[in-house]
Amino acid sequence: MLGDMENFTFHNPTRILFGRGQIASLDKELPTEARVLLLAGGGSIKKNGVYDRVIKALGSRHVVEFFGVEANPDFDTLMKAVELGRKAKVTWILPVGGGSVLDGAKLVAAAIDYKGDPWDIPAKRMSDLPHALPIGAVLTLPATGSESNGAAVISRRATKEKLPFISPHVYPRFSILDPETTFSLPPRQIANGIGDAFCHVIEQYLTYPANAAVQDRFAESVMRTLIEVGPKTLANPTDYDARSNLVWAATCALNGWIGVGVPQDWATHMIGHELTALHEIDHACTLAIVLPSLLHMQRGPKRAKLLQYADRVWDLRDGPEHERIDRAIAKTRGFYESIGIKTRLSDYKVGADTAAEVARRLKSRGMVELGEHGDITPEKVEQILRTAA
Amino acid sequence: MLGDMENFTFHNPTRILFGRGQIASLDKELPTEARVLLLAGGGSIKKNGVYDRVIKALGSRHVVEFFGVEANPDFDTLMKAVELGRKAKVTWILPVGGGSVLDGAKLVAAAIDYKGDPWDIPAKRMSDLPHALPIGAVLTLPATGSESNGAAVISRRATKEKLPFISPHVYPRFSILDPETTFSLPPRQIANGIGDAFCHVIEQYLTYPANAAVQDRFAESVMRTLIEVGPKTLANPTDYDARSNLVWAATCALNGWIGVGVPQDWATHMIGHELTALHEIDHACTLAIVLPSLLHMQRGPKRAKLLQYADRVWDLRDGPEHERIDRAIAKTRGFYESIGIKTRLSDYKVGADTAAEVARRLKSRGMVELGEHGDITPEKVEQILRTAA
Repeated sequence: MLGDMENFTFHNPTRILFGRGQIASLDKELPTEARVLLLAGGGSIKKNGVYDRVIKALGSRHVVEFFGVEANPDFDTLMKAVELGRKAKVTWILPVGGGSVLDGAKLVAAAIDYKGDPWDIPAKRMSDLPHALPIGAVLTLPATGSESNGAAVISRRATKEKLPFISPHVYPRFSILDPETTFSLPPRQIANGIGDAFCHVIEQYLTYPANAAVQDRFAESVMRTLIEVGPKTLANPTDYDARSNLVWAATCALNGWIGVGVPQDWATHMIGHELTALHEIDHACTLAIVLPSLLHMQRGPKRAKLLQYADRVWDLRDGPEHERIDRAIAKTRGFYESIGIKTRLSDYKVGADTAAEVARRLKSRGMVELGEHGDITPEKVEQILRTAA
Repeated sequence: MLGDMENFTFHNPTRILFGRGQIASLDKELPTEARVLLLAGGGSIKKNGVYDRVIKALGSRHVVEFFGVEANPDFDTLMKAVELGRKAKVTWILPVGGGSVLDGAKLVAAAIDYKGDPWDIPAKRMSDLPHALPIGAVLTLPATGSESNGAAVISRRATKEKLPFISPHVYPRFSILDPETTFSLPPRQIANGIGDAFCHVIEQYLTYPANAAVQDRFAESVMRTLIEVGPKTLANPTDYDARSNLVWAATCALNGWIGVGVPQDWATHMIGHELTALHEIDHACTLAIVLPSLLHMQRGPKRAKLLQYADRVWDLRDGPEHERIDRAIAKTRGFYESIGIKTRLSDYKVGADTAAEVARRLKSRGMVELGEHGDITPEKVEQILRTAA
């Protein structure tokens, strides 16, 4: 059962600029001759002062702006940004926002010089993407880790699809993380960020033991931090201490540090993506729906790590093994509920009949062997979702 | 007492190739037209097969070899390597060895194109070094973290000096970490590596609380791993599971991950460097001598973190505070002794009179305000070393 640590290659070239006032660093991070495509969401950055500080730092650089990147960034929206960027001959992409704006920026950066159909990039999961424009990011929502990794998830509402892609070319060259810029986020977005980051850790940790002592303890470190500072942040949104730890924990949850040399799962995410594509449920909420049910279903193959998780994350050390596992899963569900994220399909007014449809869609995409053992078949996905009703 | 997390910039561009058989990756990491200066120590790599595997992976590339980089790499030795490298017009530096070879390679890489006196680089701690040749490393001794950072320590026996320098230009472009290449290390070098890595964590952790929840837990993760796998590695040198965790823990101890946004100490290292320069005591042994005594002296300003260290690293939660602190310091000393590293000056046949000489030398270098508070004066250094007699 206990295997060796897996061989790995690790390279994360993103420069992180963390702390109060760091937006001013844009001026030294971006070449003066850069032609910048500023990408943003619905406009909250104009209300909280972030936009003004960004524009000030950009100085006399040539900037074109594209607002309107939505949550779960849409391919058709992003193609409009690509068109603008091509016309303006931009040389840098500057996302200012959360993970959706960041992910969208990655597709835009990859698509601007791409000769074929840009939908290929997520649809064919192009790890051999030849090139992308450089990205510099200003993060305003701790959640996805996109500020310091080479992954993005793109939605296409026209066909109800939501697909990830990964490329070394789309790591941001730099990312600015000023915790104060996140103070004005609404509670729902804070909670979603906490829930998303927590699940990122679980996907890389709650598999089977691989003799990765440091990685396991790092993963547990991030989870304990999220459990500690998540509720504090929700209770007091301008608490810099809680917020700065939340921001850094969310980055560390998916910047590769905890994931080197270990098996990874990601089934919860793949199933969750279908729920978002079908029902427009917030990403983090889909994870909260799927995760407890998936852990219950996979309690056999995940037994050893579930016990370690119970012990080291939830301090559950007494009682028979099956009880500790039950309680750890209940704690996981309780954590999501405690930050205001419901964990049942019915909470989102979605019927159990979606289970068969999600299974069918995963099958049609060839995603028939999900999870660290490849043993989560469409049939199991259906059971997982029925249990989550 | 409790401050905010400090602002930080983090950028670690080193690509890590970790695991069995990774030396073969040299062929794809080094450009085919690279002119390579292979730097090594006393020749152990010719006995354990590492040299043969490196030469095989280098294929038809032009390679010149320099053997003889000693522990605590000597400036005069390294200048001979610089001369060789200049004559051969090398374009890459390839250290194959432990931290000393790595550190030496950093000076060589920086000095080859440097116009002035290369001793300036450590003597003036040139953080504005304009350039260095690219470095690719094959690590054979887990200890210093030099395989994934921009720091080096250079000795000059002619003047009994030992000085560090830091530059973003000397991060290795890539580092190959194959735990099996470290199986043949003698126990003394294994122990020294464990002791060095442990102290690297302490220097970045045992200061004062800075509201860095993730960084604290990461530091504790590395220490607990070293405590767990260090003795296992010594007991069974070919245990891949223990060794791979030791190698990765030593890298994580000084690759920047645990040190972002937190106050740092490094007084133990600065004092230890003088002991090595004066008495040729192994680096890790100097740390084992200084650290317990320094922690005792600084138990006031370090109180809060000492209690956290006692709790989270040594499971010491009962009894009055001063007792828990005493026991944590005793545990620290005991850990070094348990891996075979003596912790008293007298164990190395050095008299207490060295205390005044070390204090005098630090004063002459302007190092009069050591530690995270700058409160470790030469007078305190003298007391620390007298207590360590």
